[in-house]
Amino acid sequence: MESTDYLDDIVATVRQDMESHLGRGKVADYIPALARVDPKNFAIAIATCDGRTAQAGGVHLPFSIQSISKIFTLTLALNKLGANLWERVGREPSGSRFNSIVQLEAEKGIPRNPLINAGAVVITDALLDGGDADATIAEILGFMRRLADDPAIVIDDEVAESEAQTGFRNSALANFLRANENLKSKVEDVLKVYFNQCAIRMNCRQLARAGLYLANAGHDPLNHASVTTPFRAKRINAVMMTCGHYDASGDFACRVGLPGKSGVGGGILAIAPRKASICVWSPGLNAQGNSMVGSMALERLSSLTGWSVF
Amino acid sequence: MESTDYLDDIVATVRQDMESHLGRGKVADYIPALARVDPKNFAIAIATCDGRTAQAGGVHLPFSIQSISKIFTLTLALNKLGANLWERVGREPSGSRFNSIVQLEAEKGIPRNPLINAGAVVITDALLDGGDADATIAEILGFMRRLADDPAIVIDDEVAESEAQTGFRNSALANFLRANENLKSKVEDVLKVYFNQCAIRMNCRQLARAGLYLANAGHDPLNHASVTTPFRAKRINAVMMTCGHYDASGDFACRVGLPGKSGVGGGILAIAPRKASICVWSPGLNAQGNSMVGSMALERLSSLTGWSVF
Amino acid sequence: MESTDYLDDIVATVRQDMESHLGRGKVADYIPALARVDPKNFAIAIATCDGRTAQAGGVHLPFSIQSISKIFTLTLALNKLGANLWERVGREPSGSRFNSIVQLEAEKGIPRNPLINAGAVVITDALLDGGDADATIAEILGFMRRLADDPAIVIDDEVAESEAQTGFRNSALANFLRANENLKSKVEDVLKVYFNQCAIRMNCRQLARAGLYLANAGHDPLNHASVTTPFRAKRINAVMMTCGHYDASGDFACRVGLPGKSGVGGGILAIAPRKASICVWSPGLNAQGNSMVGSMALERLSSLTGWSVF
Amino acid sequence: MESTDYLDDIVATVRQDMESHLGRGKVADYIPALARVDPKNFAIAIATCDGRTAQAGGVHLPFSIQSISKIFTLTLALNKLGANLWERVGREPSGSRFNSIVQLEAEKGIPRNPLINAGAVVITDALLDGGDADATIAEILGFMRRLADDPAIVIDDEVAESEAQTGFRNSALANFLRANENLKSKVEDVLKVYFNQCAIRMNCRQLARAGLYLANAGHDPLNHASVTTPFRAKRINAVMMTCGHYDASGDFACRVGLPGKSGVGGGILAIAPRKASICVWSPGLNAQGNSMVGSMALERLSSLTGWSVF
Repeated sequence: MESTDYLDDIVATVRQDMESHLGRGKVADYIPALARVDPKNFAIAIATCDGRTAQAGGVHLPFSIQSISKIFTLTLALNKLGANLWERVGREPSGSRFNSIVQLEAEKGIPRNPLINAGAVVITDALLDGGDADATIAEILGFMRRLADDPAIVIDDEVAESEAQTGFRNSALANFLRANENLKSKVEDVLKVYFNQCAIRMNCRQLARAGLYLANAGHDPLNHASVTTPFRAKRINAVMMTCGHYDASGDFACRVGLPGKSGVGGGILAIAPRKASICVWSPGLNAQGNSMVGSMALERLSSLTGWSVF
Repeated sequence: MESTDYLDDIVATVRQDMESHLGRGKVADYIPALARVDPKNFAIAIATCDGRTAQAGGVHLPFSIQSISKIFTLTLALNKLGANLWERVGREPSGSRFNSIVQLEAEKGIPRNPLINAGAVVITDALLDGGDADATIAEILGFMRRLADDPAIVIDDEVAESEAQTGFRNSALANFLRANENLKSKVEDVLKVYFNQCAIRMNCRQLARAGLYLANAGHDPLNHASVTTPFRAKRINAVMMTCGHYDASGDFACRVGLPGKSGVGGGILAIAPRKASICVWSPGLNAQGNSMVGSMALERLSSLTGWSVF
Repeated sequence: MESTDYLDDIVATVRQDMESHLGRGKVADYIPALARVDPKNFAIAIATCDGRTAQAGGVHLPFSIQSISKIFTLTLALNKLGANLWERVGREPSGSRFNSIVQLEAEKGIPRNPLINAGAVVITDALLDGGDADATIAEILGFMRRLADDPAIVIDDEVAESEAQTGFRNSALANFLRANENLKSKVEDVLKVYFNQCAIRMNCRQLARAGLYLANAGHDPLNHASVTTPFRAKRINAVMMTCGHYDASGDFACRVGLPGKSGVGGGILAIAPRKASICVWSPGLNAQGNSMVGSMALERLSSLTGWSVF
Repeated sequence: MESTDYLDDIVATVRQDMESHLGRGKVADYIPALARVDPKNFAIAIATCDGRTAQAGGVHLPFSIQSISKIFTLTLALNKLGANLWERVGREPSGSRFNSIVQLEAEKGIPRNPLINAGAVVITDALLDGGDADATIAEILGFMRRLADDPAIVIDDEVAESEAQTGFRNSALANFLRANENLKSKVEDVLKVYFNQCAIRMNCRQLARAGLYLANAGHDPLNHASVTTPFRAKRINAVMMTCGHYDASGDFACRVGLPGKSGVGGGILAIAPRKASICVWSPGLNAQGNSMVGSMALERLSSLTGWSVF
């Protein structure tokens, strides 16, 4: 892949503009493996539909993708179940925190959307489908490796293990879903897959590469694989736009104007439809649980590129 | 114990008055052992502070005491922890269903009172205190046997097992409490004790006898054992009055005017302070999950005896 | 009326015990007439069913009865409409603040009970019944004068006027009730009556006297008037017990063990069924909006007299 | 303006495709003037940034724009107050109904976004700014006339009057905002302006024309007026995308993929950034209060044109 001048300039500018903000926000500390990440890390990587790339900062440093994984399991589940999936999970913004259980009770076990924890757990259950947890973990990992074109991507076992040890709230959500008959496999199995998908380690380059199909109507522009249909790619982008940043999704839409999905590891994947896939990473989180400097970087990038869909 | 005429007349009248209502309400059917109970069962038993008894209907038929057990574990926990217990659980009516998780989220893991499921799980955890589940189960069962003066009381293993298999909502509550650091023992252990305490089988005579200390300032008037302090007995009665019938507690206070606690097995224990302990049983439940005919019987009894505290 | 030694001793003791607490809590300051009350005021008055009285502190000082008025309008409305009233208002504790609008939305305009603001507004509307606001105000004032046996009782116009000027939240509640078709008269008229009933000025002696019928099965033991039926008196007491102190009703039941109703002016009316009517007053409020020292005084009184119903 | 072949074909196709659906949904009937509209009405009009138009159905029939007005008052308020406006209103999806008061209580009087009723009332208050209601109504009407390039646009006095007579829920919202000090003018004045802005009558052609600045970076491409800044136009579009269809905004984003705002009169304004402004009208509403056939027509249009931003 060649690199193009103006995108290189732009990512360099974004990195410079972020310099004075590095270290802001609060690194997730609910498990040791996340807590020990250097808050001053920053990386940005762009992959365009016409095969160019641009990058700045620690783009080779792997981090825990966490909730960004929800975009990819959603893709897999839509491919598997089609529109029937929407009988088990909505696609409306939640108006509450990422792991709130209140909405779930009010709406009788149908999570509002696939990007809050409860919804993602339902998606994982749909993938698992009563089958073997390890096989499903392997399926998800294999999917990520193919999308990123990199067989070296692995799961961070320490993270997966820690999540399992401390994930009482996710366990509460899963049990609640089961009580409402919106979980078909065993709670332990579903959570095992879920904690492992969240513990996948990738760097910004890999994630930008992996998201490219969403910028290109479901089709991988580099290896020409059909990842999903154009129709589904559009819907996934729409869900990212309205629900991708929990209770800051509206703010992100205003500031950045691109579909995006954040993870508690500090990564954000953003899609500029028909143009590019972008990944930023900076571990400090804002009050809504999204990367603080990452959000700022994307706002700046959107302004410099004019890629906002609005 | 001798039996007195006027109470005998009253319970006979209550039984006759209920005749035309027998079978009303919906028997709990979430586990087979409860679902197969004959909905036409009815029993009423009274034990007075001065040693009299009166009874009518199937007072020798055992049923699953379910949530009525919460009164007795609350007594044990208050004896063990004293007023410190109120740092982990409130004593306000919940304004919502017995197993609602919404309040718990809003109030950061402090259940509103010890008689909703989440609160009772905290009480059980306080009793367990990191110890052995089987020992705690034995402690609770022993307490019930002593209070009822009957060593033959047992736990229905089928019920306990079924609860464990289907108790996803209680598992959700327990995990949520753990996520909020208001559960100290392992979730599995706490739930094991909880499901076993709910599965104790007793009949109306035994339960009326067991509750007598609450009518008598914490002191057992028959065997002269001090079960709890007068101060705690009053508080337990107060909590029963404001919280004992979930979201129908206000209605029960209006109609019956006595502290009471219902169980999903169809039993209700009611206390007439300084006078008597009463147990009714009829398996059909109303919309709020309380025995429909049992509530009616207590309303009638209260009217005939004039025992309402108001 | 004669005065009896032991009650005199008890109220004197209560007053002494409160000495070191006087001035605690926060005086309501949302309107000037309430804000300027001396926080160190304290009074307690008891009227017994057998005609005795006991009192201590500033029992002749009038204060704004505020929400205590809800007990008396409830009595009037029950006399007028009977049990039909319960189709428009529930009798369950609310589990939320006194002026919360959330519950009202969830339950489609049926307030949880007649002692939260929304419920009291419905009661006032039931009394008004499309009629003249001034006539209804006169009816309520006349009722209070008869109950207290004192024609000198008046409404504090400054308070009523200030409430009307700043009562946007009550106006929100009333409009919301109207939107849900649970308000029949004009919003302005209902609020006019409501603000005036709350602005009635009485002292502790008058209020204790006025509540005596509730301690005596609906019958005034002094002038032998039948104020309401025994059945209704019991129900009013029950509602006071479970709902009289907003979201601290459970705590009040535990500590005091008597039906009671507080007002934001710092007064509390408590009923010892078959024994006495009690009024305490101290302007500083606790976090739940109930008189802080007043609650403590009643807890002490209950302990000294043994009048707790539990 | 000339008309272009392919857009004409597309709107004709959309109209034909809707034929079998006409009359579906439920016409708003809370006021007579809305209730009497023929449910079989349908119209679609497009105005492109390069000056073309296309239309089908009853595009000359005026209807009540209702909540579509919120887009235009938001534009005016942003022009007047700039980003300070966001201190009084959020920009997050609400996760609840358009006129819910629950969120408002939970978030202390800051409406979630300017497109739910409470938020729009705050916007109207910001425009009014303590001034004269009639002057503000004239300002809004004048703005609509200039944007639509049609001085004949008027307010339907019957609708405005009916809204005022029945708008108890909006009155509740406004009073609640005032109680939380997020309303500066008098409640009556704010509601007068609000009910009048909602009662503006326009047809699809006029509304499509009026929205053109939002498709063109804030600049009117036909008369070259600068309506707002590009920055603000983007934000308004973003808010329309995440919040424009109340609790069906996520679904609309998935199906249509364009920023849009619906009104209870059956109109929807949608913006294809850099391309066109579209207005559809069909009076029958779906369960979320949005035009049922209008939503279907926009989904079809988006599919045929490929204008989805995703």
